[in-house]
Amino acid sequence: MIEEHEYGYFTEADSADVVIARNKNAKDERLKAVMAVLVRKLHEAVKEIEPTQEEWFRAILYLTETGQICNEWRQEFILLSDVLGVSMLVDAINNRKPSGASESTVLGPFHVAGAPELPMGADICLDQKGEPMFVHGHILDTKGNPIAGAKIDVWQANDEGFYDVQQKGLQPDFNLRGVFRTGEDGRYWFRGVKPKFYPIPDDGPVGKLLGALGRHPYRPAHLHYIISAEGFETLTTHIFDPDDRYIDSDAVFGVKKSLLAEFVPVNDEAAAAKVGLSAPFYDVAFDFVLSRADKS
Amino acid sequence: MIEEHEYGYFTEADSADVVIARNKNAKDERLKAVMAVLVRKLHEAVKEIEPTQEEWFRAILYLTETGQICNEWRQEFILLSDVLGVSMLVDAINNRKPSGASESTVLGPFHVAGAPELPMGADICLDQKGEPMFVHGHILDTKGNPIAGAKIDVWQANDEGFYDVQQKGLQPDFNLRGVFRTGEDGRYWFRGVKPKFYPIPDDGPVGKLLGALGRHPYRPAHLHYIISAEGFETLTTHIFDPDDRYIDSDAVFGVKKSLLAEFVPVNDEAAAAKVGLSAPFYDVAFDFVLSRADKS
Repeated sequence: MIEEHEYGYFTEADSADVVIARNKNAKDERLKAVMAVLVRKLHEAVKEIEPTQEEWFRAILYLTETGQICNEWRQEFILLSDVLGVSMLVDAINNRKPSGASESTVLGPFHVAGAPELPMGADICLDQKGEPMFVHGHILDTKGNPIAGAKIDVWQANDEGFYDVQQKGLQPDFNLRGVFRTGEDGRYWFRGVKPKFYPIPDDGPVGKLLGALGRHPYRPAHLHYIISAEGFETLTTHIFDPDDRYIDSDAVFGVKKSLLAEFVPVNDEAAAAKVGLSAPFYDVAFDFVLSRADKS
Repeated sequence: MIEEHEYGYFTEADSADVVIARNKNAKDERLKAVMAVLVRKLHEAVKEIEPTQEEWFRAILYLTETGQICNEWRQEFILLSDVLGVSMLVDAINNRKPSGASESTVLGPFHVAGAPELPMGADICLDQKGEPMFVHGHILDTKGNPIAGAKIDVWQANDEGFYDVQQKGLQPDFNLRGVFRTGEDGRYWFRGVKPKFYPIPDDGPVGKLLGALGRHPYRPAHLHYIISAEGFETLTTHIFDPDDRYIDSDAVFGVKKSLLAEFVPVNDEAAAAKVGLSAPFYDVAFDFVLSRADKS
């Protein structure tokens, strides 16, 4: 025997300690620390579950299928992370906000870099389909002062629950996407259409798991935002329709109470004409509050 | 809002409870219980690790690569389970033995069903390569009585560390494999060659992880056994060479103290002739003790 060992051979009782001790020569201290936690929690889970050999093998096959369905445009492990609440937890940990700042939620897979910068007030709906919507509000700091020059990158699904990139040829390129920049008053406003709930891809292992757990694959209707301004933390978030049938059961746990907007139906031609729409339309007012980059 | 929710929306503090509550309609109670443990432990791990978004994404990519390298003959998730000690833990949980019974270890990927049943004493080495070895002992119950009619399925790597199925064409089919059956005295004996340490497949994600953790991919030299007899629990195990350089650092944690054999060099022509070999050879004596199927 060529080396002393701290924990001796593997036993059920010592299992995690034996494995963690084996990683003592890892050069990357962060990797070593991360693996110690993962091994400890994994062994705790196995000891609590006490899987049969067959259950263990089914888990192996499930992970394998999840990896094998991934391709250039499909990431099933992210989807698995999403439906287990892990993506939202990682988002929460990385975006702890000071009191008063708007909360973040997941980016999602449908953001497209390079959407056109539009004049404030523009209609991002390029195909005139759906119920018109007027969205407006302010970009503020935590003291309530307007932020000038804030960049607002917004994107949304259409009235059938599809993003432009999911319906190439059916929707115009960059449909329901736009980038806006605030003036001195920190105000923003633009026109779109009322978004609809939609399912995450559910024809793979994640969809099967949701089905077995008695869960649906839907996300409640929402608008996506990335809001950035010099000197402030960038905010990646959504606003949600609180009347959506799935508002309490978002498949990926993205909803936060503070992100519920109001979609107020307005049936008044004068009010509609004032914002460049025809009645009826939905009025959505929402202010976003950014925290300073130094977290002050 | 169409349904009451027990935990409300996702928060960092409540994250696991919110996800687990969502699975309340799962029809399969076992699945529901298993997922509750997995979600809880996964969220505990994430909260302890506090991964950056980039670290989370690297983990997603690692799992994806692990799934994508799997094929008909390669199972990288089993390998990952092996090097994290999970396979041995599942084995331990499913094979808790009464005092005095031989301990189990992992099956490994190289067992072949249907190996030929051979007369006791046969030489399972079909190509005369390597250092000759005589292996013998008894199959006993926990009271020390011999078990008649026990079936011993044995397989091993050759003197270069390869199984026949890894060297098709280079080794004869069923080289270093055999099935034996005990008589009234419970004795078994056969001839083979001294096995050698070998690496698990280390050209994929698992090999990369081992490297980053400062670990080698080797398994110490061993012989595999599946021993079965009517009325007894089937025993899947190895015996190990305690002088192997990797005996204290088996990449898959398969070694147990009780499974260390002795490989005694014998340089005596008369003793060699008596067992049908020529000197020098290795003498390996090992008794296996089976527990009754009713665990008594």
